[in-house]
Amino acid sequence: MIIVIKREATQEIIDHVIEKIKGAGLAVHISKGKERTIIGAIGDESRLASISLEALPGVESVMPIMKPYKLVSREFRKESSVIDVEGVRIGDTAFQVIAGPCSVESKESLIDCARKVKESGARILRGGAFKPRTSPYDFQGLGVEGLKLLAEAKKATGLPIISELMDPRDTEIVCEYVDIVQIGARNMQNFRLLTEVGKSGKPVLLKRGLSATIKEFLMSAEYIAAQGNTQIILCERGIRTFETATRNTLDISAVPVLKEETHLPVFIDPSHAVGRWGLVTPLARAAVAVGADGLMIEVHPDPENALCDGAQSLKPTKFARLMDEVRKVAASVGRTL
Amino acid sequence: MIIVIKREATQEIIDHVIEKIKGAGLAVHISKGKERTIIGAIGDESRLASISLEALPGVESVMPIMKPYKLVSREFRKESSVIDVEGVRIGDTAFQVIAGPCSVESKESLIDCARKVKESGARILRGGAFKPRTSPYDFQGLGVEGLKLLAEAKKATGLPIISELMDPRDTEIVCEYVDIVQIGARNMQNFRLLTEVGKSGKPVLLKRGLSATIKEFLMSAEYIAAQGNTQIILCERGIRTFETATRNTLDISAVPVLKEETHLPVFIDPSHAVGRWGLVTPLARAAVAVGADGLMIEVHPDPENALCDGAQSLKPTKFARLMDEVRKVAASVGRTL
Amino acid sequence: MIIVIKREATQEIIDHVIEKIKGAGLAVHISKGKERTIIGAIGDESRLASISLEALPGVESVMPIMKPYKLVSREFRKESSVIDVEGVRIGDTAFQVIAGPCSVESKESLIDCARKVKESGARILRGGAFKPRTSPYDFQGLGVEGLKLLAEAKKATGLPIISELMDPRDTEIVCEYVDIVQIGARNMQNFRLLTEVGKSGKPVLLKRGLSATIKEFLMSAEYIAAQGNTQIILCERGIRTFETATRNTLDISAVPVLKEETHLPVFIDPSHAVGRWGLVTPLARAAVAVGADGLMIEVHPDPENALCDGAQSLKPTKFARLMDEVRKVAASVGRTL
Amino acid sequence: MIIVIKREATQEIIDHVIEKIKGAGLAVHISKGKERTIIGAIGDESRLASISLEALPGVESVMPIMKPYKLVSREFRKESSVIDVEGVRIGDTAFQVIAGPCSVESKESLIDCARKVKESGARILRGGAFKPRTSPYDFQGLGVEGLKLLAEAKKATGLPIISELMDPRDTEIVCEYVDIVQIGARNMQNFRLLTEVGKSGKPVLLKRGLSATIKEFLMSAEYIAAQGNTQIILCERGIRTFETATRNTLDISAVPVLKEETHLPVFIDPSHAVGRWGLVTPLARAAVAVGADGLMIEVHPDPENALCDGAQSLKPTKFARLMDEVRKVAASVGRTL
Repeated sequence: MIIVIKREATQEIIDHVIEKIKGAGLAVHISKGKERTIIGAIGDESRLASISLEALPGVESVMPIMKPYKLVSREFRKESSVIDVEGVRIGDTAFQVIAGPCSVESKESLIDCARKVKESGARILRGGAFKPRTSPYDFQGLGVEGLKLLAEAKKATGLPIISELMDPRDTEIVCEYVDIVQIGARNMQNFRLLTEVGKSGKPVLLKRGLSATIKEFLMSAEYIAAQGNTQIILCERGIRTFETATRNTLDISAVPVLKEETHLPVFIDPSHAVGRWGLVTPLARAAVAVGADGLMIEVHPDPENALCDGAQSLKPTKFARLMDEVRKVAASVGRTL
Repeated sequence: MIIVIKREATQEIIDHVIEKIKGAGLAVHISKGKERTIIGAIGDESRLASISLEALPGVESVMPIMKPYKLVSREFRKESSVIDVEGVRIGDTAFQVIAGPCSVESKESLIDCARKVKESGARILRGGAFKPRTSPYDFQGLGVEGLKLLAEAKKATGLPIISELMDPRDTEIVCEYVDIVQIGARNMQNFRLLTEVGKSGKPVLLKRGLSATIKEFLMSAEYIAAQGNTQIILCERGIRTFETATRNTLDISAVPVLKEETHLPVFIDPSHAVGRWGLVTPLARAAVAVGADGLMIEVHPDPENALCDGAQSLKPTKFARLMDEVRKVAASVGRTL
Repeated sequence: MIIVIKREATQEIIDHVIEKIKGAGLAVHISKGKERTIIGAIGDESRLASISLEALPGVESVMPIMKPYKLVSREFRKESSVIDVEGVRIGDTAFQVIAGPCSVESKESLIDCARKVKESGARILRGGAFKPRTSPYDFQGLGVEGLKLLAEAKKATGLPIISELMDPRDTEIVCEYVDIVQIGARNMQNFRLLTEVGKSGKPVLLKRGLSATIKEFLMSAEYIAAQGNTQIILCERGIRTFETATRNTLDISAVPVLKEETHLPVFIDPSHAVGRWGLVTPLARAAVAVGADGLMIEVHPDPENALCDGAQSLKPTKFARLMDEVRKVAASVGRTL
Repeated sequence: MIIVIKREATQEIIDHVIEKIKGAGLAVHISKGKERTIIGAIGDESRLASISLEALPGVESVMPIMKPYKLVSREFRKESSVIDVEGVRIGDTAFQVIAGPCSVESKESLIDCARKVKESGARILRGGAFKPRTSPYDFQGLGVEGLKLLAEAKKATGLPIISELMDPRDTEIVCEYVDIVQIGARNMQNFRLLTEVGKSGKPVLLKRGLSATIKEFLMSAEYIAAQGNTQIILCERGIRTFETATRNTLDISAVPVLKEETHLPVFIDPSHAVGRWGLVTPLARAAVAVGADGLMIEVHPDPENALCDGAQSLKPTKFARLMDEVRKVAASVGRTL
């Protein structure tokens, strides 16, 4: 931790800061320049969390040196993590695609969709049972009934399934059915939910919040890991910016940044990032080219009658073409699909 | 709802769109320009939620005309709502101030703080029992023990109390102790929590999410209201922008915009908006001048030993001075304090 | 400057960094922690600008300690600067208001407007002669003809005048007519224009760019000051964020931050910040309450026929009411109007 | 144009709005719903620019239907434009790469760099002669001397050259030397500069402003086109968001959006977008995969001694590897390099 002292601070004030740092068990390194005194606090920075250094008189600014996340960091574990979900290896050489409808609506349409995405090369089936909706008057999902239909689709196709958990009270029932628990963007900092899913031990796909920094994203992953569960897939799905031509702005640079910072696999969800099916395919190609480990794509047999997110859902035939294009780009960067 | 049709769309495609709208029970109004055909869907727009109009072939864009929120809108209720919390009237002529420590730490320090903020004119005591923290390794609050200490402070001073609810499973116990339930910025779109707090019937202070639009903020209030609870106080606490000189950017214009759109009272929390105690007082003055109904301020008897948010907490003496300044500005805009 | 070295860096790599810093004439201070080596570069940081420290192998991050601006900083000059424009003292106890139409349209309407804003208490007249317009097909201003009409309005009312300079080639002619040169938000980093206006020696009102940080804003002021001209008024006029309820988001916290960082006067332009006349008055009250030195407001005798920005222009009668309200708030914070 | 009327507006007020629209020569189409009256203005929307519809009493909101840009739009010209720069065809099947140092520093280093980037497959040489710098104390470029060195490098290698124009007064001299005039991000709305470069008739590479929407970006291109010059290359180079892990956020979705909206070629500059050389290569791969027509990359023979932007400049050997990777991805999407 670097503590910059205000120009006009007296020695007494500086001594008080030093005392505080030493009291927390860290060593102190002082550097007096002509314009500023700078104090380096050496040791375990997390111990300084309980001192409000910035509230001390004479302190101009405080800059942490250490990363606040540990278990999920590349420093902690050099090799990239591979997560095995019913034989589907995530984070390995194979590029993996999760596909399916925004929300589970009926048995036939779900199984139909599952078969088609499997045929095109998707390896995991998505489908929302509990749906976070901006309006209380919109369709909120089929709930447990939806989970059951997903289980049937799994039985019919062999595809492992992923679905979203929104409420700590549903953890047990959701974990009973799904192979991967999804934590949605709006719940990225729902710390109680992160703790529950950490305890569950199930593989988790954690979506980045709309306005979460990469550091905060990794801190949320750390919450899960701190409970002993490091089977975490990170998923970039667009951040909120001033641009309104797309629903959100896909932060594609987040992929190489995350690959440096963490050993966890990184996915991209282009459907939610842009919100328009016509733009999903080029972004899917970019995702594999930039180095992501997989994609999550919304596919619906009949988008114009979808109960949610029809505008961003691909028809199965368009998804098949997307997969062809993604396969070629994957090969060009040394990955299989 | 206005539906703009693509230039190249055939009559058949247009007819399909019209059919869909009529099928949802709305009337249709067509306007053919030289460059574009435009369809107006007349009637209850919420019925169109189940049709993905944007997914229909030939549709260029869709623009809603109606506001998506009802119960909380100024159109629904013209007069401003006043919420009575143990005799403290919120949203009335009196400007109300909520003050207290970020987190409840000990009985003495809490009661000491409560007495001092009361003396300076605060009418409600805040204090966190359950704390949402970015790091799993930081102090997470005293939990139920903290609620009990708040109850003791209420007994000692007569100040009603407010504290944050983070988990639907804690709704009952939190409601048992507090007079106002706080929903934090990170939980503004935790829809299950909103539903629970709606059912509880308790007054709620709902903080705006870091990247929530004003429309989304009001939709979250609508979630609570849809459960029959309209005792909702909206609280602007800074949004996330590119500027890093302050922790967040206080969106002061949100106050007059909200005053137009909704009948609910609007508060400002300058402490979280800026993150530095030295900037809290000028923003508090601006808040009353712009037309907010109250303030929420962090005060700690000993900020440099605060277990959280020390950097933005005011000492009681500085808070007293803030209140003097706020009182003068309040008088200049016709409000008492 | 603090240089954080990567964990895995060899001694040879560290020595290379040290050598570079010493080569630029700065002293070096090394602090070896268990996890990281940190190098402090002590002396004139600006000399390091020509070394790309971040490009050196082994460097993880570089954190400047010194402020990059000098002449405009509060450290350089402790007392607040007061700028005298034809007897109107800006930055002093009196709160000053600049008002007038977005663009100069005709002699009668301009003089009429000037008389009315003067009557209500405005002390400086604004009016655009050269207009930056987003569309090449919109009205671009009357040019030199507009400057002449402003001069006539000054003659008729005694109000000093301000108008925007967009092109270095117009510097001479604009400076011949106006009392304050305005640099618009879109030109905040038009460095050639800043240099010209710095050389001119005329008082300058510099608007903050839509996405400029406060640091960049001050660096642009430093460009002007570096030419020997420190008669600079800073003007916050809204920044671009995700929120679309207002045209821009007024960053009201920028006022106290700027007051700490610089000795220059700070104005607020609420008209451009919100883009709707109905919201201008509450923001004007907030501006004086937060500690700004003045306001810039768009007033038009007939907004619905204004050639630009009619939606955000106040009628003279509404402006008179705004001034009454601002006057009361000004008194409550110890300022005259 | 769609005009939404306020609920409480009287017939007289509505009639006044209608009269205004008719006065501008447009036809009017009225649709009365239970809750709102909506007016459609049919005809040339640009004629409404001179009426401040939003300022009219009774008007709730105004929504344009037509695109504000014409000459640059895909509606105006269906086929993609190809720009021929000394035989290098931009916007055609071949993916084109512009490379070179941030600023021109010396003859030897420039020619050395030019030879190396040519060898790796770059077809155009970049180099800054006039440099926009945030600080007045930083290196501002060699000016005309730099242009002369670029001309020598062109002679030595045959590569056409591109360099930035910052000041309308330099238009003639810059156009005399360069093959493509670059307009930098900070000057994207320097309308006078756009007009000059439009008049010059030279190919232009227009960079997107840090906080410019795609619509504004296209309006700036329209400024150039309105002068009769449609040889415009659009260049996405990162937008400003809340994320600080990268210097800016590359808006990769802008490429497919622009490809829909305009017939002009689209480039990506990953160097400025991320600001760290280590992240440039993955983004370059993503750029070709997403469908961009080319790249602009900073390459410096000795980044740690670069006079500007060393941190984001690639060494020639690293650039050669980038080109190998880009070539493979290009082939996978049917493009040559």
